[in-house]
Amino acid sequence: MKIYGDSNSGNCLKVKWVCDKLAVPYRWIEIDTGKGETRTPQFLRMNGAGQVPTVEFDDGRALAQSNAIIRYLARDSALVPRDAFVAAKMDEWLFWEQYSHEPYIAVCRFQLVYLGKNVSDLDPEKVKRGHAALDRMDSHLVTSRFFAGDMISLADVSLLAYTRLAHEGGFELGRYAAVRRWIGETEAYLGLPPAR
Amino acid sequence: MKIYGDSNSGNCLKVKWVCDKLAVPYRWIEIDTGKGETRTPQFLRMNGAGQVPTVEFDDGRALAQSNAIIRYLARDSALVPRDAFVAAKMDEWLFWEQYSHEPYIAVCRFQLVYLGKNVSDLDPEKVKRGHAALDRMDSHLVTSRFFAGDMISLADVSLLAYTRLAHEGGFELGRYAAVRRWIGETEAYLGLPPAR
Repeated sequence: MKIYGDSNSGNCLKVKWVCDKLAVPYRWIEIDTGKGETRTPQFLRMNGAGQVPTVEFDDGRALAQSNAIIRYLARDSALVPRDAFVAAKMDEWLFWEQYSHEPYIAVCRFQLVYLGKNVSDLDPEKVKRGHAALDRMDSHLVTSRFFAGDMISLADVSLLAYTRLAHEGGFELGRYAAVRRWIGETEAYLGLPPAR
Repeated sequence: MKIYGDSNSGNCLKVKWVCDKLAVPYRWIEIDTGKGETRTPQFLRMNGAGQVPTVEFDDGRALAQSNAIIRYLARDSALVPRDAFVAAKMDEWLFWEQYSHEPYIAVCRFQLVYLGKNVSDLDPEKVKRGHAALDRMDSHLVTSRFFAGDMISLADVSLLAYTRLAHEGGFELGRYAAVRRWIGETEAYLGLPPAR
């Protein structure tokens, strides 16, 4: 299996982390989206959305969307709860991550780190919604160790990707103690060095 | 089971359509988000994101995020492909719908229909991305009858919700012949009257 990914993208790293944790063999193909490498005819045949991560299996079939990829690769592992309702709660967080977290936390980071903007240039609405996402996570994690059920799941892996880098987007985590506790536990589970 | 929903929201109607198709009994609780009915302490206990649709089961457990809800309710039905890879392709479209379709097609509709804006007031970037989503759907549907595999699945149900109302957001479907063919087939499958 090949993973087409950008090492700076949390969405892409989710796929790497799941493969590493589950010992799924892969070849990482580094993609530079800034050079149009996701818009070539060859790439668009794999993923018409022209986005990374995209994985290509040895039989030529391809799959895109970070959370769909990790859900497929981890389908028979401990990262997907066996109980159907707990798995549904995991899915609830996965969809929430893409709709209410990534578009604010990851996009602000992208603008600061890769477009060279200053914090004062950020869209205040995006900053507000990013803090709302962190507030919600922190409230949940005050009473729950992880996001879906009692065990770590793909919901934690997915939410970790950009939350651990939130400070790079101007979101300081000082006031989010439960989030910081959870980041440490989830990083340790995945064998990642602390992001900061 | 109770469905807390707004009848004008495609995201909420997805849940209704799946229940109707699968003969899952439910009580529909109409929610007016404009009156803050999703921000009450009682509602936030069910769904900390304060959004509809949210479903509450008879045992008090709650589930949110339209695509997570329908994935759970339809988990043992023909709407979820049995083949794991085809189900993963369905998930790919479900995540794409929430990230690359709904934020443009549904949001433009919301601004025109509910905020009373004019087409000329719409963010040109949102309009462009909405057309890009429709272009991608049309390209796919020229060679494939449905989105995941050969059968209708939740990917079709989910994408139908706002695509059939795209014209209300200023996206005329005249040039998307394959999308119009697919809307008709999917509406007929769900027993819906044509949206226009």
